[in-house]
Amino acid sequence: MTTVYAAASMSLDGYVSGPAEAGFDQLFDWYGNGDVEVTTADPALTMRLREPSAQVFRQLLQETGALVVGRKTFDLTDGWGGRHPIGCPVVVLTHQVPEGWPRPDAPFTFVTDGIEPAVATARQLAGDRLVGVSGGSIARQCLDAELLDEIRIDLVPVLLGGGTPFFDHLRTAPVVLDGPSPVIEGDRVTHLRYRVRR
Amino acid sequence: MTTVYAAASMSLDGYVSGPAEAGFDQLFDWYGNGDVEVTTADPALTMRLREPSAQVFRQLLQETGALVVGRKTFDLTDGWGGRHPIGCPVVVLTHQVPEGWPRPDAPFTFVTDGIEPAVATARQLAGDRLVGVSGGSIARQCLDAELLDEIRIDLVPVLLGGGTPFFDHLRTAPVVLDGPSPVIEGDRVTHLRYRVRR
Repeated sequence: MTTVYAAASMSLDGYVSGPAEAGFDQLFDWYGNGDVEVTTADPALTMRLREPSAQVFRQLLQETGALVVGRKTFDLTDGWGGRHPIGCPVVVLTHQVPEGWPRPDAPFTFVTDGIEPAVATARQLAGDRLVGVSGGSIARQCLDAELLDEIRIDLVPVLLGGGTPFFDHLRTAPVVLDGPSPVIEGDRVTHLRYRVRR
Repeated sequence: MTTVYAAASMSLDGYVSGPAEAGFDQLFDWYGNGDVEVTTADPALTMRLREPSAQVFRQLLQETGALVVGRKTFDLTDGWGGRHPIGCPVVVLTHQVPEGWPRPDAPFTFVTDGIEPAVATARQLAGDRLVGVSGGSIARQCLDAELLDEIRIDLVPVLLGGGTPFFDHLRTAPVVLDGPSPVIEGDRVTHLRYRVRR
């Protein structure tokens, strides 16, 4: 069965963005604080990572076969211009298909009938690779529907004091995890990988 | 200058207790899941830890010269029967000195005029050892008053989904930290030590 993981850069107090969408300079400092270049599917986006983080990021690029994202993330990034940096197909969970989409030149699929069909579609697209889900709301829906296998946290040494928590309004709490394994220490980030216990 | 640290067992989603004060079985599982006995100042309380956690805990016992706690923690534990497991003097920050206290047989000091005098009192009592502060509200007040040097998180692999966050309503956010160093992997806990950057 395809592994489904949720991943996020998160502050020590649990936020994936600070108050009024601030804090990204801190949360994503590790994307650019090293000298190892990692190219992505977006020619305009090359990461500059420290070696431990470069290994984590390269592995993520190689392993991920499809993504599930929410409409908010899709709109915020303007659909990544039609090509996600990971370079894989993207399933967008939305109430309404946005105007101008789908596009023949972009591997984006729009699912309007809930998280389970969205993840099922992503599993088909991913083949024998992994499905990544992003955005706190999508991760929470996957947890509640028992669709999530792994949680990969890039834990950033900052307290944002408010904003958008990665985990919020869980219906099925407590959710017991196993791990973290591995624990990889980067520069201004600690990479932690947990398994969701069923 | 005496180092002042805040410490807590915290869920991955940032809570030090779950909804309706639940979750302690998960948060403190690591206190009893090993076979290394660590005695405390309380004859009735012996920890049974895995070796990595035993080292962390022994060091905490040896290094800590005084504690600052809030009234809520004091009441919840019934003043630890007059003797805190760490075996050091305790400063209780409270609006009113509780009835029956102070007691000649117990090294508890009550401070009613704010966090700064409470920490100053603890510094004097600690001598050349560390001051620990516990309870999220006390930690937050120390952060806001720039009195906190270290944050020691025992990060537990569980999502509690609600309850009491360790860090809440920070006035001075974002608070940039350095570390974690060291990172010590226990069994159902990851010990992380951060420095507060000023």
